[in-house]
Amino acid sequence: MATSPLDCADLRRRVSRAAEAFLARQRPRLLAVGPDLRPLADEISAFLLDGGKRLRPAFAYWGWRGAGGADCAEVVNAVTALEFVQACALVHDDVMDGSDTRRGHPAMHRRFEALHRESGWRGDAAAFGTAVAILVGDTCLIWADEMLNTSGLPAEALLRAQPVYDEMRTEIMAGQYLDVLTQATGDHSLERAMTVARYKSAKYTIERPLHFGAALAGAPPELTAAYSGYGLPLGEAFQLRDDVLGVFGDPAETGKPAGDDLREGKRTVLIAKTLERATPAQAALVERHLGDPHLSPDGVAAMRDVITSSGALAETEKIIEELTAQALSALQVEILDPEAADVLRDLAIAATSRRV
Amino acid sequence: MATSPLDCADLRRRVSRAAEAFLARQRPRLLAVGPDLRPLADEISAFLLDGGKRLRPAFAYWGWRGAGGADCAEVVNAVTALEFVQACALVHDDVMDGSDTRRGHPAMHRRFEALHRESGWRGDAAAFGTAVAILVGDTCLIWADEMLNTSGLPAEALLRAQPVYDEMRTEIMAGQYLDVLTQATGDHSLERAMTVARYKSAKYTIERPLHFGAALAGAPPELTAAYSGYGLPLGEAFQLRDDVLGVFGDPAETGKPAGDDLREGKRTVLIAKTLERATPAQAALVERHLGDPHLSPDGVAAMRDVITSSGALAETEKIIEELTAQALSALQVEILDPEAADVLRDLAIAATSRRV
Repeated sequence: MATSPLDCADLRRRVSRAAEAFLARQRPRLLAVGPDLRPLADEISAFLLDGGKRLRPAFAYWGWRGAGGADCAEVVNAVTALEFVQACALVHDDVMDGSDTRRGHPAMHRRFEALHRESGWRGDAAAFGTAVAILVGDTCLIWADEMLNTSGLPAEALLRAQPVYDEMRTEIMAGQYLDVLTQATGDHSLERAMTVARYKSAKYTIERPLHFGAALAGAPPELTAAYSGYGLPLGEAFQLRDDVLGVFGDPAETGKPAGDDLREGKRTVLIAKTLERATPAQAALVERHLGDPHLSPDGVAAMRDVITSSGALAETEKIIEELTAQALSALQVEILDPEAADVLRDLAIAATSRRV
Repeated sequence: MATSPLDCADLRRRVSRAAEAFLARQRPRLLAVGPDLRPLADEISAFLLDGGKRLRPAFAYWGWRGAGGADCAEVVNAVTALEFVQACALVHDDVMDGSDTRRGHPAMHRRFEALHRESGWRGDAAAFGTAVAILVGDTCLIWADEMLNTSGLPAEALLRAQPVYDEMRTEIMAGQYLDVLTQATGDHSLERAMTVARYKSAKYTIERPLHFGAALAGAPPELTAAYSGYGLPLGEAFQLRDDVLGVFGDPAETGKPAGDDLREGKRTVLIAKTLERATPAQAALVERHLGDPHLSPDGVAAMRDVITSSGALAETEKIIEELTAQALSALQVEILDPEAADVLRDLAIAATSRRV
């Protein structure tokens, strides 16, 4: 029986409810320190409960189900921990990139910068915003563990998942470091862009959540390997789709201004491919515009034109298609629960399909 | 049998060796991502292995021993996790405060800022330093969990300690937030300074580590209560000693320039007491100089004079003495292992004795 998109929406709602219940328990702990902690509690809740695609919990949940784990509230609690890890990554990432917005709202550091300004407090409002956003991210990272450890799953399950959980979190940080470093060194090679994408996103968004769910369920190595066969190519395809959306995406969907990745100067695989294929004049245009924070809509259009006419966009779309097909073929293993296989197929298509 | 200071030095060495062994296991994991990860691995190791007083592991270790836990390598591994939590707190704190130095060396963000500059990389060196320091702190926070979970202690012990570990980490973040907020709102009340000190330091440095060790050992509530009776006043005394050292301390011992807390504008209990007792002219001088980043040695001397002549210093020293005595009397419980009681007495005296 294939699971309808409605069931995915249902899982999203259950993840949100699990996060909400956990946050309701944390709130009095913060307020016990003092009523001044209210904005911290409020903003963490707002961030965690404000949508998001809940992709990582979904892959972790279906990783568990695929290994024969039964649906239960406890596993939903456990996979919701990944949303807290992700919240830390996003809030800190926005500080590091100096991003103004996230999901169409002001980024966390901008929210506290605004609170500082509106309250007429002393000192530098931006520095205050940065400091609090660092603490918000740290708190989310800590609460991820607590969410996992108090999920209600048996201790053996938690112990089994701990190594994957640790590995995943170290990989995220390593990937982020490589990303920051790459912006600094200006290494524009395709190889480097692929490595950053692999560590920062591919493993972390899909493969590791699947492994995490599998480990919670005590899956055999054969299934873990199948999840890698599915998760790694799909993760790369997903990242490439994200690269394309970052340049061509609809602001209403991405929650970021059109062409924002270009203004931020992101050295994506799409950009690396464009530079490989571009004429010298086109390459000069890309280098001139990339990372210009004041890039105009005309500049964005000119960049889009180079990315398209160089053939980089079409090549990227073709690779997304091939990687997705490769991912889907890895699902053809006996050991995988058929309902989970169907959902993972649907998720793969939803995560990578063309939306521009 | 009383444990000599040599035994405390021995525990410090064992904590350092445990951290070193753990870091040696993490290093290849980072380098597997790419050789460019070397500076990240190097700087995390340098920070963790560069001394520090290992106070939190010491209290956690003796919390375990006091509850009848046997000495073993596994518990040393487990308590060393607290050094990784502390590393995160310090590295992020230095970013938030814009501090240049830590333990007499450049702060983490300044180290990576220097690496950026020396390497001639592109973009803003300071922003690079901040971004990497955020990631370094996150990595330390993650590694703390892994250090704890792979300590070798039985799963039941780890499960027992998890709630204390979670509570402690949330309290640190809440205390830090309150600290940052207090600098911004300019609330100079003694009450606020005491609350910040309690959450940011007292509970976290002494009480919670003792509880953590006690929980690992499965101690009864009576011992946990005795540890609070010892840890909370001692923690406050320790924080007051730190306030005094921040103004009057020897740079060779504190690793910070003389009077650095004054330049940073720290609203400590010592400063709150000074303002309570000062004449209007003295109070005006304090308000004028406090937080002046260019405060001269003469300015520092003038501030010291107000703190002393107002009687705030003597009163603070008296409170330190009283709190320490109160802490020591809480150790008089049957249930506490006598050797641990002796060491905790020595630690209390070492942590709070007059050094100016």
